Amino acid sequence: MDFSRLPKTAAIREVCPRDGFQSVKEFIPTEKKLDYIEAMIAAGLDEMEVTSFVSPKAIPQLADSAEVLTEIRRRHPEVRLTVLVPNLKGAERAVENGARILNYVFSASESHNKANINRTVAESLNELDRIVPLAGNGVELSVSIATSFMCPFEGRVSPERVAGLVEAVRAKGVQSLCLAETIGTCLPNDFAETLTVVRPLLDGIPAYLHIHDTYGLALVNVKAALDLGFNRFDSAIGGLGGCPFAPGAAGNVATEDLVYFLEGLGVETGLRAAALVSVARRLKEDGLATMGHLAASSFAREGRGGACPE
Amino acid sequence: MDFSRLPKTAAIREVCPRDGFQSVKEFIPTEKKLDYIEAMIAAGLDEMEVTSFVSPKAIPQLADSAEVLTEIRRRHPEVRLTVLVPNLKGAERAVENGARILNYVFSASESHNKANINRTVAESLNELDRIVPLAGNGVELSVSIATSFMCPFEGRVSPERVAGLVEAVRAKGVQSLCLAETIGTCLPNDFAETLTVVRPLLDGIPAYLHIHDTYGLALVNVKAALDLGFNRFDSAIGGLGGCPFAPGAAGNVATEDLVYFLEGLGVETGLRAAALVSVARRLKEDGLATMGHLAASSFAREGRGGACPE
Repeated sequence: MDFSRLPKTAAIREVCPRDGFQSVKEFIPTEKKLDYIEAMIAAGLDEMEVTSFVSPKAIPQLADSAEVLTEIRRRHPEVRLTVLVPNLKGAERAVENGARILNYVFSASESHNKANINRTVAESLNELDRIVPLAGNGVELSVSIATSFMCPFEGRVSPERVAGLVEAVRAKGVQSLCLAETIGTCLPNDFAETLTVVRPLLDGIPAYLHIHDTYGLALVNVKAALDLGFNRFDSAIGGLGGCPFAPGAAGNVATEDLVYFLEGLGVETGLRAAALVSVARRLKEDGLATMGHLAASSFAREGRGGACPE
Repeated sequence: MDFSRLPKTAAIREVCPRDGFQSVKEFIPTEKKLDYIEAMIAAGLDEMEVTSFVSPKAIPQLADSAEVLTEIRRRHPEVRLTVLVPNLKGAERAVENGARILNYVFSASESHNKANINRTVAESLNELDRIVPLAGNGVELSVSIATSFMCPFEGRVSPERVAGLVEAVRAKGVQSLCLAETIGTCLPNDFAETLTVVRPLLDGIPAYLHIHDTYGLALVNVKAALDLGFNRFDSAIGGLGGCPFAPGAAGNVATEDLVYFLEGLGVETGLRAAALVSVARRLKEDGLATMGHLAASSFAREGRGGACPE
């Protein structure tokens, strides 16, 4: 394993306010959400997927998206705020409410796209054509391709399929891309294979990787990505997150674990794991469901967790 | 990340009956322990650290070591059974009770050895001299060096210190070695550095790696080890385990997670992850404290775990 040619820096996009909060069954009151987001920003996070403009019927947890976006924009104009949108309607509502970075999502695999978005992939690409005109005049458009590595229904997604979608999306003129390992079961050889096939097609467009940690593979996949020059990652404080249509999938790689890993390998993130652990502990103390590795260990040192035997 | 030069096979030594069961607060009744061990053997595990001959005052959970060893030896003469011993007294008792592989443990770092064994490292090496004569006539002697990478009190343990200890131990004529990442916080660059320094000194002696998963680094460290040709691993079904004197340390890498990883990379273990997950689920259903990634995901698919959001 080579450690001599890692990227010097990495960018981390915090997705807990979107992917994490939507995975918590109960609606987190807006004031509480704003408090958590404040704590994340205070811990140094300067890029964040802050909410999602989806139907409140589909995801009632994020029914306050307009309020959250507006308020955080007002308080923190310096933070890069992304909002997830699954369709034109969401994208329009996001822009009306001041969104400056739209993250349009669809899945590489037909069956997951159908379950998650209720569209064929071709229909999702057509919908993207209708969203593209919203970009410009200070609005950026990003596209997230879910199940870019593994599909909960179809298994391994072929790199060629993902490559074709990356080319199709890039040709439409988006400002960045995100490839998601939605279910967290992809082995690093397969993960690296897809990235190797996709990399030459990116043509300078920033590409984020969004990695869930279901089978404990997140950090080894991050290492595989770093080896190929990828250095933008989504992660969620406390390891929160999931996908309603990926049965058995666990949360995102925890931001604090990722920062410990990257900083330990000499890849600068501008963040400190200890500050992030404090926020993760607070989420756990407030009864949110999951917990990353560093936070669990931090609790266990006080005899408050399940990690330490006695 | 290179996947073309991995070892073709790997050996897995199941340590749940020792490292796992000692980490469960309540005494697991002997019949229950035997049932679990039977299930592990039925799942294909053919090498196992089955108990520990320590003072029942120090570790009451394993007070039935003689009975467990005798019974599993009688039922399964084909399984390679190791027993952990912290001193001459334990080693003698183990041999009297039919142990065929002794695993003598001490720590590379002075402060952890003091906390765990109440000896200096020099005293532990002297004690080893008294144990060596027990080997031979069908009795093998292995030595585990705890805190070979990180110490909970001293931080990073220098590779040179570990190399010196490996040389000292090997010179005494042991049949195998084990290097333990006792606290599970070592980054893969440091992990690989220690293995790189130690490797030339092994001189053909089989070397196991014992890796806890506290910060989610177990599998990336396994990959780093494979890259250096190491292919013997300790692991515990369900990720059970810990160290009473490593505050905040989590359990071992889960056997089922390790098998999924190795088999997925084409490294043959002779084991199937699905069979191991069944045993891990049983341990969890019986109220034992921890759970590996695959087992957690398996429960979550049924809506019974915390991994899946809805």
